[in-house]
Parts: sequence; structure tokens; C-alpha cells
Amino acid sequence: MASAPFNRFVTGVIVFAAVLVGLETYPPLMARYGPALHLLNDLVLAIFALEVLLRMGALWPRPLRYFLDGWNVFDFLIVVGSLLPGLGAYAVAARLLRLLRVLRLIRTLPDLQIILGALLRSIPSIGYVLLLMLLLLYVYAVAGVFLFGANDPFHFGNLHTALLTLFSILTLEGWVDVLRIQYFGCARFELPNPALCTQPQAQPLVAVVYMVSFVLLGTLVFLNLLVGIIVNSMDE
Amino acid sequence: MASAPFNRFVTGVIVFAAVLVGLETYPPLMARYGPALHLLNDLVLAIFALEVLLRMGALWPRPLRYFLDGWNVFDFLIVVGSLLPGLGAYAVAARLLRLLRVLRLIRTLPDLQIILGALLRSIPSIGYVLLLMLLLLYVYAVAGVFLFGANDPFHFGNLHTALLTLFSILTLEGWVDVLRIQYFGCARFELPNPALCTQPQAQPLVAVVYMVSFVLLGTLVFLNLLVGIIVNSMDE
Amino acid sequence: MASAPFNRFVTGVIVFAAVLVGLETYPPLMARYGPALHLLNDLVLAIFALEVLLRMGALWPRPLRYFLDGWNVFDFLIVVGSLLPGLGAYAVAARLLRLLRVLRLIRTLPDLQIILGALLRSIPSIGYVLLLMLLLLYVYAVAGVFLFGANDPFHFGNLHTALLTLFSILTLEGWVDVLRIQYFGCARFELPNPALCTQPQAQPLVAVVYMVSFVLLGTLVFLNLLVGIIVNSMDE
Amino acid sequence: MASAPFNRFVTGVIVFAAVLVGLETYPPLMARYGPALHLLNDLVLAIFALEVLLRMGALWPRPLRYFLDGWNVFDFLIVVGSLLPGLGAYAVAARLLRLLRVLRLIRTLPDLQIILGALLRSIPSIGYVLLLMLLLLYVYAVAGVFLFGANDPFHFGNLHTALLTLFSILTLEGWVDVLRIQYFGCARFELPNPALCTQPQAQPLVAVVYMVSFVLLGTLVFLNLLVGIIVNSMDE
Ligand code: NA
Ligand code: NA
Repeated sequence: MASAPFNRFVTGVIVFAAVLVGLETYPPLMARYGPALHLLNDLVLAIFALEVLLRMGALWPRPLRYFLDGWNVFDFLIVVGSLLPGLGAYAVAARLLRLLRVLRLIRTLPDLQIILGALLRSIPSIGYVLLLMLLLLYVYAVAGVFLFGANDPFHFGNLHTALLTLFSILTLEGWVDVLRIQYFGCARFELPNPALCTQPQAQPLVAVVYMVSFVLLGTLVFLNLLVGIIVNSMDE
Repeated sequence: MASAPFNRFVTGVIVFAAVLVGLETYPPLMARYGPALHLLNDLVLAIFALEVLLRMGALWPRPLRYFLDGWNVFDFLIVVGSLLPGLGAYAVAARLLRLLRVLRLIRTLPDLQIILGALLRSIPSIGYVLLLMLLLLYVYAVAGVFLFGANDPFHFGNLHTALLTLFSILTLEGWVDVLRIQYFGCARFELPNPALCTQPQAQPLVAVVYMVSFVLLGTLVFLNLLVGIIVNSMDE
Repeated sequence: MASAPFNRFVTGVIVFAAVLVGLETYPPLMARYGPALHLLNDLVLAIFALEVLLRMGALWPRPLRYFLDGWNVFDFLIVVGSLLPGLGAYAVAARLLRLLRVLRLIRTLPDLQIILGALLRSIPSIGYVLLLMLLLLYVYAVAGVFLFGANDPFHFGNLHTALLTLFSILTLEGWVDVLRIQYFGCARFELPNPALCTQPQAQPLVAVVYMVSFVLLGTLVFLNLLVGIIVNSMDE
Repeated sequence: MASAPFNRFVTGVIVFAAVLVGLETYPPLMARYGPALHLLNDLVLAIFALEVLLRMGALWPRPLRYFLDGWNVFDFLIVVGSLLPGLGAYAVAARLLRLLRVLRLIRTLPDLQIILGALLRSIPSIGYVLLLMLLLLYVYAVAGVFLFGANDPFHFGNLHTALLTLFSILTLEGWVDVLRIQYFGCARFELPNPALCTQPQAQPLVAVVYMVSFVLLGTLVFLNLLVGIIVNSMDE
């Protein structure tokens, strides 16, 4: 059942389904060839449903053992989910479900599955470094709200806003502007939304110590994450 | 005393204290549930105080040996510091102290302590590369003030401003704009604060040599820092 | 024929040709010394043609075996291509063909060829990680069009636009602005081209989950790419 | 002569000279304590001159062997250069010469010298990767001028401008804006200096292929540079 030609055919159908869902992103194309694309989508769905039945049948007389494999459950949900009507508010959900079909490639390409497995296995080995990163983010986020929340509610208005700001600073994107808003105060260095500047407060020293230490610690922890992955890969 | 269930209970209390201090960053929540949150904070503090007494008692008849361990001193200061009244100007300090309780996690999670220890031990091994980085920053900062201080006081007005500018250039954030201000002069390429442009001076060649060499040297030293950490980790 | 002095002479001619094509980028220089530069270009072409003939002659009595080597075919096409008239619309093509001569350096410098060979050989070993990256880009691009296409047609108007946007986010360039447009809606956070904002829609939660997960997954796959190259290089 | 206490004393004087030259970057300080700082500078110079004489004397009866060591020549030039009058246009040069004294630290700290030596030795091993990087920059710079020079003279007006632009793109700073100027043409996506937009030309396909391939190739070569340094460090 899981013979090479069968597998190659299914891979081809998945790639074709991926192209179909990609074509849906072009409104003029949908306006013109919508019915034809829907028909092709139904054909893909029929093939996937047939594949599910064939794989179940191959396990006869115990077809329910099919559901013991996580990938089979994933396939089954995609097929059943596509049979539900995707109307109104569910239109986007139906489209995203059709998109998930692309992920079936991971199953039909064993090498991809191996790479992905290695990638996922590398996560626990770096678990405590990730925890350290989370601790760093949490402590700096709460401190950021206490120190800069009044001056800069756009970046440090509350905990979840501050966490997002610090995540973007970890990627070093726009961190100098965030620093300057606290350094000069929002009255002298404008917020993205100037109306939020109601309690300007310049804290040059606190801002520099806070930001520079966060960038240095964040980079150090990130480097250790990288090193952890490298050393881990070499042990394998 | 340091039995597993006791440790797990303390870890739970610390996580709970972390959530509490996070909730304090939401003003509407504080307005509504402030008294309840304060009560819970007092409860956490009481548990921490009891923990200190229990750990001291376990060392009887020599309870003062408790202070021989750095983490115990840290715990003690957090408890005593929380007992002081956090009024007026000290309100932020009191909040930051409550935030520091989160760091007690490092003590109760031995694996985290090991990771952090390895991270701190890696610093001396890269000490001289760090010194080289500091030397690079210092020499370029002083030269930057001499060369560009008149044209661009916003980025190179004095030594500490120039050091901060060069640190941001090391992260490659906004370095092209800093270059252009010196390349074209502040009269033709605007400063973030245009009022500071009193002595515009275009120095294309000097600016390119200065910036490009700094970016190259900074990246080279940074790569060596990374390599130092990797090689060091593998030796362990 | 492939003696060291001959090779060194050809290398020199290629470097000279590279300088010539570089000089062509300065219009005032072309206006003044255009005829002389054209003459020198013809001289370089003549030397290259002679080199082709010499290399063919060295294979006598089977000169056509010359075309069995890919680099020889490359040389031949460059010489023949340069003989075609570069008029009108083909002027840029003729210039780019003259520029390709610089790549002949790869042939005359064996060490460079070795480095390049190692670099190209490292690609298959990271092939499946690249495929994973492509899958990640494709799935997020289609989902991005479905989720954000109406609010932000500038970044997510259709599949190829979304792919380009996600590629730029992989380089962490400007990703925070893209996030904010979806977070606040294009009515409150301006698009680069504000006229495109016809159906503003703020989706804070969806936007944060989408962007942060993409940045995390993209960085993770990129780190695995890097690790793959490092581990591969060490095995050699 | 090169005894430990003597060396430590000289190190102290160099650090003191570094602080002095740092203080010079603060104009108000210079206005107030200028004479005192000049006196201290003269004192440092006298100590350095004495050190040169002592080191020469230690080589008696062949004091000129002093000049066989590169670091000694460096010391000598710094002392002699400081004796020349730093007037008028030479004021900046005199200050930079005083700044170079800081580099004398490399000599008095042997560990720093070892790190720096290892760093410099790593350059030849990555020489051909650097050459490949230069080739990539050169070919793309010339092609950039041919393709985009008319539309965007700010970034691609001539060879040296294009080289600087591509170097900044290698650091991934602002590359998306450069792409958009060529993608939409300078009439629809503004240049930093809009007056330069005289021949707007939108080249979406060419721009995307050019930029994306450059970013990918640049990153690939950079990763190989990094890998080269790592593998090299491990062999040592
Ligand atoms: Na950046
Ligand atoms: Na960046």
C-alpha cells in the first residue's frame, strides 16, 4: 500500500493541491476560473478520501488501528474538515484547512520527516536555555512597565505590550528608537502614536542601563542557544 | 529541609509571586482587585519569611551559617527589603524588589542553575576578546568625537554619546543613517534633532573609511567571540 | 598550454577587463575616454579569442573535446556573445556580458575554484532544510494573504507579494512595522502606500501569533541551516 | 627592563593616557581644566620618552636593535609625533596621535597580543572566501549601476556608490527600501534625496531577482566565512 509509486503519486497530488491553494490568492484568477478551480479542489479531496480508505483497508481486519498513527489522524481530520461547508465566517477557516494539506508533504517525504524530527528533538536539549530566555523577557518586561510605562505606553503600557517590545528588541529591530524615547522622554522624541504621550519623562541613565544590558544578555543567551544546538548536533 | 516536595512547593509559590507582580502592570486590574492582590502579596511574603526561618532552623545550633551561602543572603535581602515601607519615591523600588523574587526560581531549579553557571563560566574565557571589543569601541568613540563631533553632536557630541552610537552600530541598527550624516554633512542629510546642526561638514572619504572599518572589525571581533564560546563549550 | 605564466597572464587580462567594465559606470569618464576604453575592450576580446583558439589547438587533433569542459563553454559563449552587436535594447545585455568576464577569474584561480566547489557541494547536504524553509515560506505566505490580504494589500496582496514580504521578515528587516499594520489595522498604522488601505481591519491576536511564530520558526530553521553547514564542513 | 612591575606601571600610565584623551571629548571640561590636562599629557609624554630611552639603553651597546621590533617603532613614532607642534589643521591629527597611545596596551598585555595574533592569523585562512565576497560585491555593483543607475542614482549612481550600497545590504540594513525603489521606480517610492529622481523606471522582476539573489549569496558566503573561522579555530 505504501509502495513507492503510490507514494510518489500522492506527493504529486499534494504539490498540485499546494499550487491550487496558491492560485486562490489571486482574486482576478478566482473570478475567472473559480468554478474550474473548485472542481479541481473537489478532485484532490476525492483522491485524499480514497487514500484514507485504501490505507484503512490495508489494515483489514483491524481498520481502526489506522488511528494509532498521528499522521493518519492528521490526514483524516483534513479530509473530514474539508467536507464541512465553509460558509460565511468559516470561509477563511476552510481556506486555511485546504492550506494545511501542504503539510502532508512531510509525511510522504521521509527525508523531510527525518530533518523535522531532528529539529524537534533539538528543542528539549535547549529547553533550559529557552526557560532562561523567558525569565529574562519576563523580568525585563515587568521592570519595563514599572520604569517606562508612564512615559511610553505605546511600547511599555502593560505586560503583554512590553513582552512584544522586548521580543522585537531581541531581533535588534528598532531598538535604538525605543531607547531614545525613554532617553529623551516622549515629549522630545516622538512616539509612533504621539497622542499617547501624556506623562513625558526623560530617564537617560536608567534607559541606557536597561536597554544595553538587555541587548547584551539577550545576545549572550541567544549565542548559548546556538552553541547548544551545534554541540548537540555534533554529538549525534 | 531541602526535600523535593518542599522545593516544589516553594517553586510554585515563586511562580505565583511572578504572576502577581505581572498583574500589577495592568492599572485597571489594580484599581479593581488591588486590595486582594496586596493580601496575596503579603501571603507570599509570609511564606518566604517562614522559609528563611525554616532554613535557618535546619542549621541549628549554628543558624548564622545560613549566611555563608550567597543565595541565602539574596533570599534574606528580598524578604527584609519587602518589609520596608514602599512609599512615595520608593514605590518603584519596592515593585522592582517584588520583581526580583522571580529570580529565586534559579535557586529552586537546579538545572537552570547549572545552565546559568556554565554561561557565567564562559565569560572569563572570552574575557580578552571582550577587552579587545572595549578597546575598539573606546578608540573609535574618541576618534568619532574628534572627527564628527562638530557636524553631528547628536551621535558624536561627546565620549559617552559616541560609545552608545557605536554600540548601536555594532548591532547594525541604523548604521547607514549615521554614515550618511557624516558623508553628506548634517545640512544635507538631517539629524534626528535638526536644531543641533550648527557646523555642517561633509567628510565622505573619512566617514566611509571610519564606518566600514568599524563594522568589519566589530563583526570580526564578534565572530571571534562566538567562536570562542563554541570552542569552549566543546572542550567541556 | 595551461602553464603557470600563461595562466598568470590571462588572470592579469581578466583583472584588467574587470577594471575596464568598472570604469564604464562613470559617465563623465565614458564621455571623455570612451573611444580609448572601447579600443582596450576590443584588445581584451582579441586576447580572449586567441586564448580560446590556443586552448582548442592544444587539443589537436580533436579540438572539439574543448567543449567537454563546462568552463570552456562558458569562455566560448562570452567571446562569441561579445562579437554580436550590442545595439539599442541590447546595450545593457552587452554590458552585462562584458561583466561576466570577471567570473573567468574563478577558472584561473584554482584555490577560488576549490572554495566555490566546497560551497556548492554544501548545498545538497542542506537541501532538505532548504525545502523545509520553502514549505514554511509557502504556508505562511498563503495564510498571510487569506488573513491580512484585505487589510494590507501592500505586503500581503497576493502570493508573490507575500512571499517577498516573508523573505524580508526572515532577514528581520522592518518586520515590526508589518506586524503593527495588521495589529492596529491600516487605518491606524499607515501603509507605505496609504491609498491601498480600503478595508482596514485590526487583528492584534492573529497578527502577533502569526508574526512571532514565523520569526521563531524561521530563525530555528536558519540556525539548523547554519549548523548543517558547520557539521558538514567538519566532516570533510 | 621588561620586569613585571615596570610593565604594570607602563600599563597604568597608558590607561591614564586613555582617560586623558577621553576627557578631551568634553568641551566644558577642556575649557575649565584645559591647562591642567595639557600638563598631565606632557607628563605622560615624558614618561613614554623615558621608557623609549630605557628600552634602548637596555640593549646597550647596540641600542639601534631597538628598531628591529615593530612595536618599538610604533612606540617611537608615537613619542616623536607628539613632539611635533599640533597647530591649525594638524590639531585633529595631533589628537588622533594621542589616541593611538591607547593601542600601546596591546603590547603591555601579552594575553591581548596572543588573542590579536590569533585573530590576524585567521585572516589568510579565510582569504579566498574574502576574495569570493569581493568578487560578488564587484559583479553585483557593476550590474547594479547598469540596471538601476538611471532610476536610482542615490544608491547606484556609480561604482563606488553601488559598492557602499551593497555593503550596507550585506548587513541587511535598509535593503528592503533599496529593493522597493527599483521595484516601483523612484517616482512612486521616494529616494532619500527626491531631486535625484530624473529617469524613473520600475523593474519589479529584475529588482527582485537581483536583490534576493544577492542577499542569499551574500549570506551563504558570510556563513562560509564564519564556518571557516570556526573550523580553523578548532584545528589549533
Ligand atoms: Na536590523
Ligand atoms: Na537589522
